[in-house]
Amino acid sequence: MIASSPAEVAQGVSKIISMLPASAEVQEVYGGKDGILSTAQKGTLLLDSSTIDPSVSQEVAKQAETKGAVFMDAPVSGGVNAARDGVLTFMVGGPEGSFAEAKAILDNMGKNIVHCGAVGTGQAAKICNNMLLAISMVGTSEAMNLGIRLGLDPKLLASILNTSSGRCWSSEVYNPVPGVVPGVPSSNDYKGGFGTALMTKDLGLAQNAASSVKANTPLGAAVFQIYRTMVNHGFGGKDFSSAFVFLQEQGKAK
Amino acid sequence: MIASSPAEVAQGVSKIISMLPASAEVQEVYGGKDGILSTAQKGTLLLDSSTIDPSVSQEVAKQAETKGAVFMDAPVSGGVNAARDGVLTFMVGGPEGSFAEAKAILDNMGKNIVHCGAVGTGQAAKICNNMLLAISMVGTSEAMNLGIRLGLDPKLLASILNTSSGRCWSSEVYNPVPGVVPGVPSSNDYKGGFGTALMTKDLGLAQNAASSVKANTPLGAAVFQIYRTMVNHGFGGKDFSSAFVFLQEQGKAK
Amino acid sequence: MIASSPAEVAQGVSKIISMLPASAEVQEVYGGKDGILSTAQKGTLLLDSSTIDPSVSQEVAKQAETKGAVFMDAPVSGGVNAARDGVLTFMVGGPEGSFAEAKAILDNMGKNIVHCGAVGTGQAAKICNNMLLAISMVGTSEAMNLGIRLGLDPKLLASILNTSSGRCWSSEVYNPVPGVVPGVPSSNDYKGGFGTALMTKDLGLAQNAASSVKANTPLGAAVFQIYRTMVNHGFGGKDFSSAFVFLQEQGKAK
Amino acid sequence: MIASSPAEVAQGVSKIISMLPASAEVQEVYGGKDGILSTAQKGTLLLDSSTIDPSVSQEVAKQAETKGAVFMDAPVSGGVNAARDGVLTFMVGGPEGSFAEAKAILDNMGKNIVHCGAVGTGQAAKICNNMLLAISMVGTSEAMNLGIRLGLDPKLLASILNTSSGRCWSSEVYNPVPGVVPGVPSSNDYKGGFGTALMTKDLGLAQNAASSVKANTPLGAAVFQIYRTMVNHGFGGKDFSSAFVFLQEQGKAK
Repeated sequence: MIASSPAEVAQGVSKIISMLPASAEVQEVYGGKDGILSTAQKGTLLLDSSTIDPSVSQEVAKQAETKGAVFMDAPVSGGVNAARDGVLTFMVGGPEGSFAEAKAILDNMGKNIVHCGAVGTGQAAKICNNMLLAISMVGTSEAMNLGIRLGLDPKLLASILNTSSGRCWSSEVYNPVPGVVPGVPSSNDYKGGFGTALMTKDLGLAQNAASSVKANTPLGAAVFQIYRTMVNHGFGGKDFSSAFVFLQEQGKAK
Repeated sequence: MIASSPAEVAQGVSKIISMLPASAEVQEVYGGKDGILSTAQKGTLLLDSSTIDPSVSQEVAKQAETKGAVFMDAPVSGGVNAARDGVLTFMVGGPEGSFAEAKAILDNMGKNIVHCGAVGTGQAAKICNNMLLAISMVGTSEAMNLGIRLGLDPKLLASILNTSSGRCWSSEVYNPVPGVVPGVPSSNDYKGGFGTALMTKDLGLAQNAASSVKANTPLGAAVFQIYRTMVNHGFGGKDFSSAFVFLQEQGKAK
Repeated sequence: MIASSPAEVAQGVSKIISMLPASAEVQEVYGGKDGILSTAQKGTLLLDSSTIDPSVSQEVAKQAETKGAVFMDAPVSGGVNAARDGVLTFMVGGPEGSFAEAKAILDNMGKNIVHCGAVGTGQAAKICNNMLLAISMVGTSEAMNLGIRLGLDPKLLASILNTSSGRCWSSEVYNPVPGVVPGVPSSNDYKGGFGTALMTKDLGLAQNAASSVKANTPLGAAVFQIYRTMVNHGFGGKDFSSAFVFLQEQGKAK
Repeated sequence: MIASSPAEVAQGVSKIISMLPASAEVQEVYGGKDGILSTAQKGTLLLDSSTIDPSVSQEVAKQAETKGAVFMDAPVSGGVNAARDGVLTFMVGGPEGSFAEAKAILDNMGKNIVHCGAVGTGQAAKICNNMLLAISMVGTSEAMNLGIRLGLDPKLLASILNTSSGRCWSSEVYNPVPGVVPGVPSSNDYKGGFGTALMTKDLGLAQNAASSVKANTPLGAAVFQIYRTMVNHGFGGKDFSSAFVFLQEQGKAK
């Protein structure tokens, strides 16, 4: 059945999962004129797997509460392959008492279903992880590029980092230098994977959240600007590990 | 026996290991008036475990060559505990043909003795690792601080990062937030460990090396300045994971 | 007369000027339950001199329009002395046709009353100016500190900069080094002037605005984080030129 | 007369002016095998207008002293037009007692001949100015780009900045947005002017100098990396005000 509006969807069901591009769409689909909350029944469980501003999740949860419904944020990580294999991670924010019901649903799609705390903390966990991921990825790209220019073999350098204190997911599992790790986007012309434009969006959410709680994030701010520059220079559709290419690229005269 | 000069040391021996504070001392101890090279015999193996500018290692190696001696750079990583237990990592740069001899000596002190390539590449590997380490540590500090302010429990956040793509040595093994990992400096008032002033020195070497080979290192440059600021504000003697404290500190009015 | 609510203020008047701390207060005072817009008469001119998010000015202007009132943003720059002397600058955003009426009022307080364009552009101009100001001030602080450490006399260095391409308002009029320019905060223990906490707030607005229009602001992002760090370390109440002190401070061991 | 070596030049003269690309060339031309110092006569005045590392100027000055010659650093600023019109600025470092003699020569080429202090301080002044210039230029580019995206007219925004606290040489005299100031490189496709590659070189000198005196330069470090990235992406031969283009460029998919 295809519904003509979110309101129609909400009429006959007791559980809804949504996954939308950004904060504005979540506000519209839930709180808009023909939104879910206009018809949602008492006791409905609303699971939103969008990656959005934590404060928007909290705002929608408040609106849901006035209807007697429960809204939980449940952003996801793991990428396309994890989705296909049903091993995604869901970071869930919302009332303790509703978590078991949420988990029962999400278990069908994911392997790790983590209760992070009150509504919005799922988003917080996702945002923090992706900020650190972006920092590590650009850091790995810088370290690999520097080492190569100083005469080190890329595979050897990666193996040294990976047995030392510099090791991180980006150096071990998803190395940005082509040929170091087989099967990852860097070894496939940076196709597939997690796009630079999407990472830029998540880094923007992290900066907004950091501003709102007055958290100091010098590298988070720097890496947001680097990914923004990459998008401006045509890397938006490439995997975010293409930071390596961006940093070492030797351009033609413009 | 206590020698009165490096020259005196070099007179009667065929193998020398040195470990000095910085580039200037290495230049003086090897190439100075009463330096090792003034008396070193043909065939002497010179192993320098200082962390210095790779180009200085290369320069001293050239001087050694004119005396028929072999100079290899062999900086070390692993810290005080690894030194006590004899499990240090040595990153060695120098001629393939001399590596076995170097390894035989270094095996007494370390567990991983890695041949990185020509002279200077040991320094290069060390510098790249420590630059990535500093970036990851500040990144982890930012992510943990942001998450805590957004309402996440520190241990829960660390466990989420450590099973996700944000994981790194700094989040898993050496978490900068007190109480998350037992026995590390952050759980002991940031005493012991690897001092902020020493990390700042290594980051300066990384920036010099990056300038010389025209490598782009935006986060490496940023983190160097952050650690420099920390030294200026009294964190020089604290472990480098005290970046977490520096970022979230709520100062008194000045 | 003291009114008991913004609604009461709006009842009997045709012109209102407001100046509030931040976006939330503007939303509340205009759009809240007893807000100005609940009673504002048709044709009322609403001039808001707060420094807030341009998108909030636009949002309130839309609400005002439905009541037949005209809302214009008119943030101010110039500081305490300019206010006393009536030589403030007002950057005004709103309909061309209402500008003359706004100017007639603002002429009583300011010297430069500039029409910047549609509603929100007054904020935009203010935010852009203050972002560039903060960048120039920290840049001047860095250049002065570096030059002094390299052996230059501060006054001589300032005079060289001020006759060269490095000159800016911060180097000429408001030099952050004590003793270079008489009568400015740096020569009075950084008292008075424009507080670091207020500058940090404006830089946060700039970053939010930059995110919303996808503008690349690497130095704007960096300087926001620097001022955030300064606030965390007790400089919030000092003039924003105290960046010079923050950068060169040699802290006691912590 | 064309000499076959620097040594031959130095034989018959009492005053020498040099202007060379970088530190290595100055070391070679003065201190090399057939260098100026191999034949320079007692009392010769050596004026070096290269922009190099201040510590190299100091090193060559020491070598000159042992020959009884006086070496002064005298880097220049002002660009091609100023050179043609004889209105360059020379920043001179060296003994007070030799400054009058140096000035008499430099007066033929420049308008401002400034004695900065001991040898090396001419370089220091030049480096500090150019670091602040680069910071202001990128800052101006960011502010103009942000303002334009927020709906401001570029000329109006420039005029607001130029009568406010954000004003700087880059916003007033050399605005990076095409069409705002006539006759500057931005209005001529960023041709002519001061090349991005040359600015990058000077910023590298500033970072080396900052490292050596432990000066904190967060924006100086950031802007060096931005210009390095620009060189890597093909802007090396464009005027350094092309930072505006780099920041706002909307790239094609790569």
